[in-house]
Amino acid sequence: MRDVAIIGVGMTRFGELWDQGIRDMFAEAALKAMDNAGINKIDSLYVGAMSSGLYAYQEHIASVMADYIGQVGVPSARVESACASGGTAVRMAFMEVASGMSDIVLAGGVEKMWDVEDGTFVLATASDQEYEAYNGVTFPGLYAMMARSYMDRYGLTREELAQVPIKCHKHAVNNPNAQYPFEISMNTVLNASMIADPLRLMDCSPITDGAAAVILCPLDRAKEFTNNYVKIKGVGAATGPIALHDHKDLTRLDAVKLAGQRAYAMAGVSPADINFAEVHDCFSIAEIITAEELGFFEYGMGGKAIAEGRGTYGDKIIINSSGGLKAKGHPVGATGVAQVIEAFEQLTGNAGKRQIQNAKLGMTQNMGGSGGSSVVHILEAV
Amino acid sequence: MRDVAIIGVGMTRFGELWDQGIRDMFAEAALKAMDNAGINKIDSLYVGAMSSGLYAYQEHIASVMADYIGQVGVPSARVESACASGGTAVRMAFMEVASGMSDIVLAGGVEKMWDVEDGTFVLATASDQEYEAYNGVTFPGLYAMMARSYMDRYGLTREELAQVPIKCHKHAVNNPNAQYPFEISMNTVLNASMIADPLRLMDCSPITDGAAAVILCPLDRAKEFTNNYVKIKGVGAATGPIALHDHKDLTRLDAVKLAGQRAYAMAGVSPADINFAEVHDCFSIAEIITAEELGFFEYGMGGKAIAEGRGTYGDKIIINSSGGLKAKGHPVGATGVAQVIEAFEQLTGNAGKRQIQNAKLGMTQNMGGSGGSSVVHILEAV
Repeated sequence: MRDVAIIGVGMTRFGELWDQGIRDMFAEAALKAMDNAGINKIDSLYVGAMSSGLYAYQEHIASVMADYIGQVGVPSARVESACASGGTAVRMAFMEVASGMSDIVLAGGVEKMWDVEDGTFVLATASDQEYEAYNGVTFPGLYAMMARSYMDRYGLTREELAQVPIKCHKHAVNNPNAQYPFEISMNTVLNASMIADPLRLMDCSPITDGAAAVILCPLDRAKEFTNNYVKIKGVGAATGPIALHDHKDLTRLDAVKLAGQRAYAMAGVSPADINFAEVHDCFSIAEIITAEELGFFEYGMGGKAIAEGRGTYGDKIIINSSGGLKAKGHPVGATGVAQVIEAFEQLTGNAGKRQIQNAKLGMTQNMGGSGGSSVVHILEAV
Repeated sequence: MRDVAIIGVGMTRFGELWDQGIRDMFAEAALKAMDNAGINKIDSLYVGAMSSGLYAYQEHIASVMADYIGQVGVPSARVESACASGGTAVRMAFMEVASGMSDIVLAGGVEKMWDVEDGTFVLATASDQEYEAYNGVTFPGLYAMMARSYMDRYGLTREELAQVPIKCHKHAVNNPNAQYPFEISMNTVLNASMIADPLRLMDCSPITDGAAAVILCPLDRAKEFTNNYVKIKGVGAATGPIALHDHKDLTRLDAVKLAGQRAYAMAGVSPADINFAEVHDCFSIAEIITAEELGFFEYGMGGKAIAEGRGTYGDKIIINSSGGLKAKGHPVGATGVAQVIEAFEQLTGNAGKRQIQNAKLGMTQNMGGSGGSSVVHILEAV
């Protein structure tokens, strides 16, 4: 297998992008990434999107996008693993370059979520349709059960849980692409509308339009194009039970642990070596559990740790410097790619006011459903 | 890159499978394939499906299927390229094995099409939503324009065009998995309901439920599992314009030509070396144009050739020995995988009454939309 680098990145602002359709958003991100990498031709294309069918009545979007970014002729494929679609697209591109099949591969992700009436219904198609969605369980409901179990088991208080979105919003203030680049108070979290007890509105990532794209190439060719690149040091993916009721433990996400272990093994590093991580905080409780599964905190200690000020600037591990899904926004198919962009910007010293000093190794963890799938990447500064 | 083999195949019957949901069908095909390969554990999973969201309100199906075939933990991804989703899944699995990332990879495809009211609407999401589908053009309409152009340009008659489905149905008689395993007459084709002039019902592939799966592994490990395997000698994929109105010529499918050229180049063979081909005959005219693009006939000669009895047993190139999409059925996401299964069975001498004598090299060509994407595989007997 060849070593693989990321040589360019691009994304739209995340938010309510009423003046952009799905192809406009993707083209903006993809062309920015190609410009950033200094290329005008790609060899292959991946598009991560969870439900372009139900959100935009457009399947076959990898073909659409190849056409709309002026690259007709290249092989293309859409990849989908619910909210882990973007990370999965990066993993496919990694394999295509690593295998020697292609040299310059674009991995992007996109979701146009504001144009449908019932986005929560669409999101529920990422759960077990026959046993969960059909019976009325929504994603906030599934994660609420996880949160309730965790709070009960480990004594995490409602106020402590609230520190997760408060931290994410603090980070997002310095992210010009964030949907909600402002701070929120404890009072705001505790008095937000109840969504699924104990989760309130401020515990939930928002509905977001957006797109993101990265360009991969063999590591030994990166310098032909740019001095601004990072190495993909580890890749891991895994599945877990599709339905929450099949989890052996409601406070655990096995797919995240397994994907993390595989990425650590490929990279030859351990959690203590990671300087920062973008984790999949689709709900406040998810940031805590994923950070534990990735080895940054002991089981049951992640919530308390973040409440005590861990996971932010000054700590040895900084979590969701971008603002996370909660504050940066969560255009489902784009999220996993945007996480990789945050890691790229941190590792190349281009993160502006969010810059983490001396960052050498960053991790991204993208997740589908209530842990039905997960993809982890470890990126290294060169 | 490592050489890659296919060591096992499995599929459901194609048809109206009212007693099987999407996961039942996929599990049947996948478990048959694993049994056929003599394995009970896979390293990774791909699921090709065009629109599990609009057809079954279930996204995240690669995670669902990993769970339902007893392989929770493995990496998984759904891949989609409209009606070329199945072929794309095989291509992804090829890359994963070729790259050295994994050894035993299952590539499957599935579509549950009979459970929705307006399957034609769902299929139209594979075209250009904003410029074609939204304005009322359906797939029969798009291919009707191609057929009309071809007939006008090359003088193909309505009766000659009818020989394509007549041949496909003749082949399907010997396929126990075919949706319509019976012969049809010229009279039946010419008097079938008009769908989109000049295409009548018997020119159109049907709505079908079904699933198919194949198991890939490194060629040098194949003998550990079975003596019944084939080599994947060439893989090619390409995109074309998403909208038919952007084709430079309505009688051509550039993506098919390009994907074919790439597969021929990787395999180091030419059209004359191919003994049989499964081509994407979503409509009668498509079999003619794809066979021309793949180099089996000169441009403008494919229709006349098939009408004169070429492309069937006895000829140097046999096209759609399975019965093709028209008579075997077309469960969109499964089709590309089922094409590979037909090639596997022919090359391992297990095609029963459909057996092509002395077949050494077979080709499969899967297509998305009106030529927005295409994937070609060349398989070799070992």
